[in-house]
Amino acid sequence: MFKAEIKSDTLKGLVNIISTLVDEAKFNVGEDGVNLKAVDPAHVAMVDLTIGKGAFESYSATGTEMGIDLDKMKEMLKLAGSGDVIDMEQDESQGRLIIKVGNITRRMNLVDTAGMNDPKVPQLSLPVNVDVAISELQRGMKAAESVSDHIALSADEEAFELFCEGDTDTVSLRLDRTKLAGLSASSKVKSLFPLDYFSNLVKAVPAETIVKISLGNDYPVKLSFSFADGNCVVGYLLAPRIEND
Amino acid sequence: MFKAEIKSDTLKGLVNIISTLVDEAKFNVGEDGVNLKAVDPAHVAMVDLTIGKGAFESYSATGTEMGIDLDKMKEMLKLAGSGDVIDMEQDESQGRLIIKVGNITRRMNLVDTAGMNDPKVPQLSLPVNVDVAISELQRGMKAAESVSDHIALSADEEAFELFCEGDTDTVSLRLDRTKLAGLSASSKVKSLFPLDYFSNLVKAVPAETIVKISLGNDYPVKLSFSFADGNCVVGYLLAPRIEND
Amino acid sequence: MFKAEIKSDTLKGLVNIISTLVDEAKFNVGEDGVNLKAVDPAHVAMVDLTIGKGAFESYSATGTEMGIDLDKMKEMLKLAGSGDVIDMEQDESQGRLIIKVGNITRRMNLVDTAGMNDPKVPQLSLPVNVDVAISELQRGMKAAESVSDHIALSADEEAFELFCEGDTDTVSLRLDRTKLAGLSASSKVKSLFPLDYFSNLVKAVPAETIVKISLGNDYPVKLSFSFADGNCVVGYLLAPRIEND
Repeated sequence: MFKAEIKSDTLKGLVNIISTLVDEAKFNVGEDGVNLKAVDPAHVAMVDLTIGKGAFESYSATGTEMGIDLDKMKEMLKLAGSGDVIDMEQDESQGRLIIKVGNITRRMNLVDTAGMNDPKVPQLSLPVNVDVAISELQRGMKAAESVSDHIALSADEEAFELFCEGDTDTVSLRLDRTKLAGLSASSKVKSLFPLDYFSNLVKAVPAETIVKISLGNDYPVKLSFSFADGNCVVGYLLAPRIEND
Repeated sequence: MFKAEIKSDTLKGLVNIISTLVDEAKFNVGEDGVNLKAVDPAHVAMVDLTIGKGAFESYSATGTEMGIDLDKMKEMLKLAGSGDVIDMEQDESQGRLIIKVGNITRRMNLVDTAGMNDPKVPQLSLPVNVDVAISELQRGMKAAESVSDHIALSADEEAFELFCEGDTDTVSLRLDRTKLAGLSASSKVKSLFPLDYFSNLVKAVPAETIVKISLGNDYPVKLSFSFADGNCVVGYLLAPRIEND
Repeated sequence: MFKAEIKSDTLKGLVNIISTLVDEAKFNVGEDGVNLKAVDPAHVAMVDLTIGKGAFESYSATGTEMGIDLDKMKEMLKLAGSGDVIDMEQDESQGRLIIKVGNITRRMNLVDTAGMNDPKVPQLSLPVNVDVAISELQRGMKAAESVSDHIALSADEEAFELFCEGDTDTVSLRLDRTKLAGLSASSKVKSLFPLDYFSNLVKAVPAETIVKISLGNDYPVKLSFSFADGNCVVGYLLAPRIEND
């Protein structure tokens, strides 16, 4: 059983993040909130997302799972203004989710979750943590996109740097300690990543979010952030691209 | 003879509505205003539109008719801001319409009206009338478009409903008596319509208009509304799509 | 040596104007500012542009020249808000230009200027001068574009006129003395020009600029204007299209 109301802005943030990786996703519903784990088809990135009960305007649920087509959800979100509240209710007998925006009701078939297994989230020990405003990363990715298809993220005790090298030009975003919300680095680390994955996620993060970037050497990056007053918690892992020397 | 000034917003509303059905239209000009009747090429919908003298800032005309290419009119309207007044004058000797926006003058050839006969507007007796805010219909059509290519309109004593059924999902807009500007229904009626025609008209209706929807059972729908302080009066008829059972 | 800071709006205006003619351009840098002369590949139009030292927030340079890919410059400008200051510095040892917007640094290869000779700017004696607000020309070009691919510019003691004749329609923008910022005409002149060149330049001129149009009979037109408090001075010459009778 699942019946809840949620602000359209919160739901939009969630759907945008998940849909950078998958078109359909399995939501694990519990009494205290919803969890989702998803891996993209190429197994390059993973998202682990928790939507606490407090993220909803009202929430009433018992353990269930729902497979949702995210494009249909986006169509409904387009009907909602930024102050609107969206009403959702699972119709278990019909295998449907009933979504209401204003006077509009959409009854959408849920997707079969039989083949959708929750990926196992690896526990990584990453030596460097950087807290950075998403607006800085968004501008950095916009600059990098015209230059290359991969980016290097590096950090040391002094600064965090996003670096991108093309055939003729280079682009860098360098933020020293004073321009960061936090920096904890015991050593110098650097890893290379596919630009498109990183960029798609960065664009999907809600405005004014502070993102924690956890980095190692030629190792996956983890991006952690929360929104909706801390009630939506996101962990995003991206595999490195190994440099050939 | 025809010489008139009209607010760009009013003319834009008129042109948007007519161009949902035809690219060129014959305007019947009289001393007290202008009338236009047009049917789309597939003979599915018809518009009957009266532009009273009061819709114009100034108006001076004797009986004449003008065939107008609506795309050209739209090009001129793009030059006008929302407060601008558009000046129009028929040049009978040259078969042209002279349109002025600010310091710009366009002299456009009128279209030959020889083959453009006024369709006969059928007198329908429709048992149900619903008065609804266009914003509700606009949101409803936006939701319906992703689901199907036809819609059902129905009403009874309690409510008006727009319903749309796709392969996996349904969308409905249900407005009960309290959410309508008016409802007069002696029986329950329902008819099915092609979504694209209905949607194109709904999008063309000026904001904040109340539309009267007159309905029957498997029968055409009539949409009636006015704008520009009641000086532009529109009747729009759409043929039903008969359900095969 | 070249090291300077400039407001993003000023640089945007400059790049927009130059890129109506060429994709790459040679900037001649001197102690008191920068000059650029460029001709489009078809040799139909020429721009002669001077960016005085005062157009910059800070400026320090000795004689040098830099070949710049304007598309790359536009990419950097997209990162800047309208109040932002852009920092530029030539890296002579690497043959690069280092551009900074906020915390982003792009190091871009300069283009080889070996084959880029400064065109010789012809001295024309044009009998008629018209000073006109760019907004009027912009609206005029918007109206003309749908009608033809060439425009006639004419002027006499009374008025300036932009006229455009298509197969069925004509468009004119007529500005009499009272609607112009200035008009000095001892005789009646008229010349025909390719619409696309004229239109592209007109769209690139910063808002609220007064443009001086210097005209002759079947002769090139010269457009002169300045922006950034008179510190950016532009002369633009466009060859006439000769009418075949």
